[in-house]
Amino acid sequence: MKTLTENLSYFKAKLIDLMNYNHSESIVHWDLETGAPKESIRRASRLLGFYSEIKYNILTEDKFISAINFLGKNLDKLNEIDKKSVIETQKDIERIKKIPVAEYREYQELIANAQGIWGEARAENNFSKFQPYLEKIVKYSKKYAEYKGYDEHPYDALLDDYEPNITVKKLDIFFDTLKKELVPFIEKIKAKENKISDKLLKLKYNTEKQKEFSKFIAEYLGFDFNRGMLKESLHPFSMGLNKYDVRMTTRYHEDFLQTSIFGTIHETGHSIYEQNIGDDIWDTVLGGGNSMGIHESQSRLYENLIARTKEFWIPIYNKLVETFPENLKNISIDDFYLAINKAKPSKIRVEADELTYSLHIMLRYEIEKQLIEGKIEVKDLPEIWNKMTKEYLGLDIENDAEGVLQDVHWAAGLFGYFPSYALGSANASQIMNKMSKTIDIQATLKKGELSKIKDYLNKNIHQYGKLKDPSELMIIATGEEPNSKYYTDYLIDKYSNIYEIN
Amino acid sequence: MKTLTENLSYFKAKLIDLMNYNHSESIVHWDLETGAPKESIRRASRLLGFYSEIKYNILTEDKFISAINFLGKNLDKLNEIDKKSVIETQKDIERIKKIPVAEYREYQELIANAQGIWGEARAENNFSKFQPYLEKIVKYSKKYAEYKGYDEHPYDALLDDYEPNITVKKLDIFFDTLKKELVPFIEKIKAKENKISDKLLKLKYNTEKQKEFSKFIAEYLGFDFNRGMLKESLHPFSMGLNKYDVRMTTRYHEDFLQTSIFGTIHETGHSIYEQNIGDDIWDTVLGGGNSMGIHESQSRLYENLIARTKEFWIPIYNKLVETFPENLKNISIDDFYLAINKAKPSKIRVEADELTYSLHIMLRYEIEKQLIEGKIEVKDLPEIWNKMTKEYLGLDIENDAEGVLQDVHWAAGLFGYFPSYALGSANASQIMNKMSKTIDIQATLKKGELSKIKDYLNKNIHQYGKLKDPSELMIIATGEEPNSKYYTDYLIDKYSNIYEIN
Repeated sequence: MKTLTENLSYFKAKLIDLMNYNHSESIVHWDLETGAPKESIRRASRLLGFYSEIKYNILTEDKFISAINFLGKNLDKLNEIDKKSVIETQKDIERIKKIPVAEYREYQELIANAQGIWGEARAENNFSKFQPYLEKIVKYSKKYAEYKGYDEHPYDALLDDYEPNITVKKLDIFFDTLKKELVPFIEKIKAKENKISDKLLKLKYNTEKQKEFSKFIAEYLGFDFNRGMLKESLHPFSMGLNKYDVRMTTRYHEDFLQTSIFGTIHETGHSIYEQNIGDDIWDTVLGGGNSMGIHESQSRLYENLIARTKEFWIPIYNKLVETFPENLKNISIDDFYLAINKAKPSKIRVEADELTYSLHIMLRYEIEKQLIEGKIEVKDLPEIWNKMTKEYLGLDIENDAEGVLQDVHWAAGLFGYFPSYALGSANASQIMNKMSKTIDIQATLKKGELSKIKDYLNKNIHQYGKLKDPSELMIIATGEEPNSKYYTDYLIDKYSNIYEIN
Repeated sequence: MKTLTENLSYFKAKLIDLMNYNHSESIVHWDLETGAPKESIRRASRLLGFYSEIKYNILTEDKFISAINFLGKNLDKLNEIDKKSVIETQKDIERIKKIPVAEYREYQELIANAQGIWGEARAENNFSKFQPYLEKIVKYSKKYAEYKGYDEHPYDALLDDYEPNITVKKLDIFFDTLKKELVPFIEKIKAKENKISDKLLKLKYNTEKQKEFSKFIAEYLGFDFNRGMLKESLHPFSMGLNKYDVRMTTRYHEDFLQTSIFGTIHETGHSIYEQNIGDDIWDTVLGGGNSMGIHESQSRLYENLIARTKEFWIPIYNKLVETFPENLKNISIDDFYLAINKAKPSKIRVEADELTYSLHIMLRYEIEKQLIEGKIEVKDLPEIWNKMTKEYLGLDIENDAEGVLQDVHWAAGLFGYFPSYALGSANASQIMNKMSKTIDIQATLKKGELSKIKDYLNKNIHQYGKLKDPSELMIIATGEEPNSKYYTDYLIDKYSNIYEIN
């Protein structure tokens, strides 16, 4: 192929194929995680392996590489979307072509199977059932880091998959700052622990009614049910197949109302992002959310900075009381507000409060870093996990289901992913700070005008999809690069008020 | 490729690819029909078109054709499974290669979209919304018949896709016999219409409890929920992705208990078939149920010849009464048995009784035949439908939702499919007749030993998958070719007893 047009159209046709395989893969994953028959994994895992292999073959095909090399030399002749598509795909190729195809396919099948096993191991509280799978996944991840290459630390290679330009060096500083600022602050709060009770959230809340309310609140935030759905799964997640098909799950605990409400709000934050990618890019490889740190900023912003304010609840608290009058009819909105903001170290990450949450991430970060370095071994994880939980959170883990087996991420091979949760929280504070200069947030929430918030985020973040780099996007949205100061300031300010600390 | 081994392994590798695309297609269809967001069809229809195109390309690829031609000349050197795989795939190639790829893909997208539109048109009772889609589908079906070719009647080309060797000539005789035997018999029953009341089935039956009972009865028949699932959809169906993943749906009417119970039993019949394909062929292209006429024999056998006997209900009627005591506690099993066997012409095919069911098929057969011949036009269908319903069933159709829009089949492009329902009923009677010579069916059902029935069908039908031709399979299972005498004899005998006709 000689002309720009020929190369570009070949390139774009192949990207559409890739998108079709990604779409297929997502549907199969969704299916597996929301009710597929148990033994279906036997054939479905091979199907996932098949998709991986085909995607690998497309990305490493000579003609495709030659087209992309041609385009890479003519970037200045391409429009912004094509240009960015070329650049991102070049990165994908770089990443993938170093891994032998058989290994890649085998790994995809491994993680498809491992997730089922993790679910069983967790249900049976039996780490040893999961251990051999996790050992293989860690082994592959270490190999993958070597294949991919890195400048300073093997874990950097993994981090880069989720958050470009983030390194162990930067994260060590980030978490050190958090530790320095937050750990002594949390100590102060522990002294006032009894100031707030969240007992009212731990009464019996009917699951069907929780479902109704979850649906209501997703819609209230701006989730479009014609272009999405909400179901139930063991581990909540959201999945944007494209802006016309964005799916999310939550889970319901009869004895803890927060789980479903804030889980749903969190996933709705992700999903509103995916539903509002710009019309010019939704059907391209740029048509999804940006890095994990940006994605998580949207879920955290809704979950914490919006939905854990009193103003947010003013227009809808009555609706909640009407849904659960037996538990809430004598509870004031002020007490409810305090309950949903009680800060107290807990064992389960997804149920942690906003303040102590980042300690859970720090723990996972330390473990992953050392696993990938080879300083610790999978077989010792339960012990290490429990020891670190005691150290960071002051808690005794009694069984692995509430300890090392609590998260699906490792079963899914997502090493390097957890830090983006903390980065997301930091980005959320920074974005919120900037938004508050344009929108009177308290007044907007009081009036229930959630569409104003949504429109602001659509315009400043969502519409861009992957068209910009994460730091570029943060500059567009906030005028500066990611800066963790906003996060620590926000947390200390908020919790000083709640716990009356000065 | 020169050697048999080379050609065979290339052929088999490509079949695995085809199976992967079929698997993908099934998952997407399942997803669309059991709750995918409304607007997801926008992208999903293109995905289905993509699969079709790829499958088309695999089947028409030069290297693949040359391999299959090589193997076709060396059939005597292949084992039975490979040999039959070659023969069946040759037929698929013959069928597909006559259709231009763009047309094929366009058609796949058309029927993906048409099913959504059909659902809306039916809900809105608005045929004109569906009409332009149906016109395109009929147009394509006529063209397809020409591409495919036929000896006598264009409709033969379509029939052959679902039931090899069935022609208009044979069906005219088949339906004429049914008409001759059954229509006067049904007249006799009409005179005794008031002998049986099914009012007890039309009380209020709680949906959640129906769901429970449906699940119970599927398991009772032998459906394995580790390798399958039961959900809800507008139009009940079953889908065997492979023997480890067999899915089915039913629907629940609060005011008519039969719909869910017998719908579930019907689909369970299909699903037990798919779950019990032989271990040597499950993971090959032969690893699904045989022709539609054989498949439908299994669902009908369970639905009617097993589950509409009194003996079947003896061990489980108490369970049903306990599930719905408010409606059934004073109803004897004899009255229940009569109610589920009330014969009375009805408007909706899937709710028809066993006796008048084939008249619904006859109606559709006549319409399809004439549509494909070009004797009638899509725009006139509502009128024609209503007129024929009056003629065959003596009923006045008041709106298209209960008339021409009642079935999804045409929206799915399934012209030529309906006759297999009647053929299936006929095969079921023949198989049951033979089974009764080995197994004391009444005694077996009374003891609740459903596994005996299942094992018999597994051994004589299910295990073979597509390894045999339908008529060959009928000979294996019953010792003779399909013979409609068993069907009319069975019906007249059964209903003569019930209605005391001599």
